[in-house]
Amino acid sequence: MLLGKVVGTVVATRKDEKLEGFKFLVVKQLDIENRETGGYVVAADAVQAGIGDVVLYATGSSARQTVLTDKKPCDAVLMAVVDTWEINGEVKYRKE
Amino acid sequence: MLLGKVVGTVVATRKDEKLEGFKFLVVKQLDIENRETGGYVVAADAVQAGIGDVVLYATGSSARQTVLTDKKPCDAVLMAVVDTWEINGEVKYRKE
Amino acid sequence: MLLGKVVGTVVATRKDEKLEGFKFLVVKQLDIENRETGGYVVAADAVQAGIGDVVLYATGSSARQTVLTDKKPCDAVLMAVVDTWEINGEVKYRKE
Amino acid sequence: MLLGKVVGTVVATRKDEKLEGFKFLVVKQLDIENRETGGYVVAADAVQAGIGDVVLYATGSSARQTVLTDKKPCDAVLMAVVDTWEINGEVKYRKE
Amino acid sequence: MLLGKVVGTVVATRKDEKLEGFKFLVVKQLDIENRETGGYVVAADAVQAGIGDVVLYATGSSARQTVLTDKKPCDAVLMAVVDTWEINGEVKYRKE
Repeated sequence: MLLGKVVGTVVATRKDEKLEGFKFLVVKQLDIENRETGGYVVAADAVQAGIGDVVLYATGSSARQTVLTDKKPCDAVLMAVVDTWEINGEVKYRKE
Repeated sequence: MLLGKVVGTVVATRKDEKLEGFKFLVVKQLDIENRETGGYVVAADAVQAGIGDVVLYATGSSARQTVLTDKKPCDAVLMAVVDTWEINGEVKYRKE
Repeated sequence: MLLGKVVGTVVATRKDEKLEGFKFLVVKQLDIENRETGGYVVAADAVQAGIGDVVLYATGSSARQTVLTDKKPCDAVLMAVVDTWEINGEVKYRKE
Repeated sequence: MLLGKVVGTVVATRKDEKLEGFKFLVVKQLDIENRETGGYVVAADAVQAGIGDVVLYATGSSARQTVLTDKKPCDAVLMAVVDTWEINGEVKYRKE
Repeated sequence: MLLGKVVGTVVATRKDEKLEGFKFLVVKQLDIENRETGGYVVAADAVQAGIGDVVLYATGSSARQTVLTDKKPCDAVLMAVVDTWEINGEVKYRKE
């Protein structure tokens, strides 16, 4: 998994029928110092995340292992909202 | 998933028999500011996209989760035509 | 899928038993302007391609979705020989 | 698999229900000279690793082949704690 | 698949139970001119390769398609020892 920050949404009316009702979130990738890396992913949301939330996301076939994404043409999913992380005992992020 | 723009087509008469009738589209990857990244993918089209459309595409095994691509040797699929996306409340793209 | 050009062959007598009879082709990756990117892949050949052919190749689990590669330890397959492709109406390659 | 060093933990209360009880570790990627590459991954822990341990981790669908991660939306797992590795007969790391 | 050269071994006593008896080899990635690229992978060995051997390796779910690696948390496998390869008729490597 990688760390990311939810920064936006994508609206798509015309989509594969299996994706009806899906909400697509734009996630900027973070490094472990809580800095943006420049990478991003558009992910399905299995945890009701909101704009500004820091999350963990999984990609590839693992992204289809939630009830929401099972057998869907979806290769990225938010599977956790991060409360905090620390590196070598130093807190790098704490949810307010 | 990643954002992309459909810019072309690939014609291939000789192909794996499971791919008969497939239409291959060339998609330029976009970043979240709606700029081209330099990357591309050739994808199957599950949503009847056309040249110029901005789309979401999925890769890997997830690309085989549409009716069109099921059990096919295909690792990328357009699964949504994007209407609009916004980042931190700012619209970055709107379909005309 | 990505575009590539077949440039060589790999001979390997000692290989996993499931790969008996496999032919491995070396494929240089192409960008959409028909330039080499510097990347390559060694792929199984589901379409009887030859040296010099421009092809589409699929990677990952999708590479196992041909009759040839089913259940094989093979992560890349040529699944189409390209006749032509065009970008924004301009032909970038045409098979002679 | 790649080599990595466990450097931290991620706490996430709100997560996909299949991930209840999961412990997420932050792993810095190492090259074969035992230097950090700048890359990282957040992984599930199948081997009770601790901060400072050097480990092997697997990604993608292979990360779901442990009892812990089976059918979970998890794309990276620590599957071994490294005792030592050597390159061309030279020891690059030895666990203390 | 990619070309690589076996340069070392990793010893790991504590590992996922499915990996008992596994031998992990360190493989430096090669480009098609037989030069090291700087990349590496730690792979299981399905073909009894030795230090110095040039090999083909597969990654991802395809790495689990050998008898050795079936259903194992293993994302890379050596599936062939290379005898020779040539590019545009020129031999780039020949096993001694």
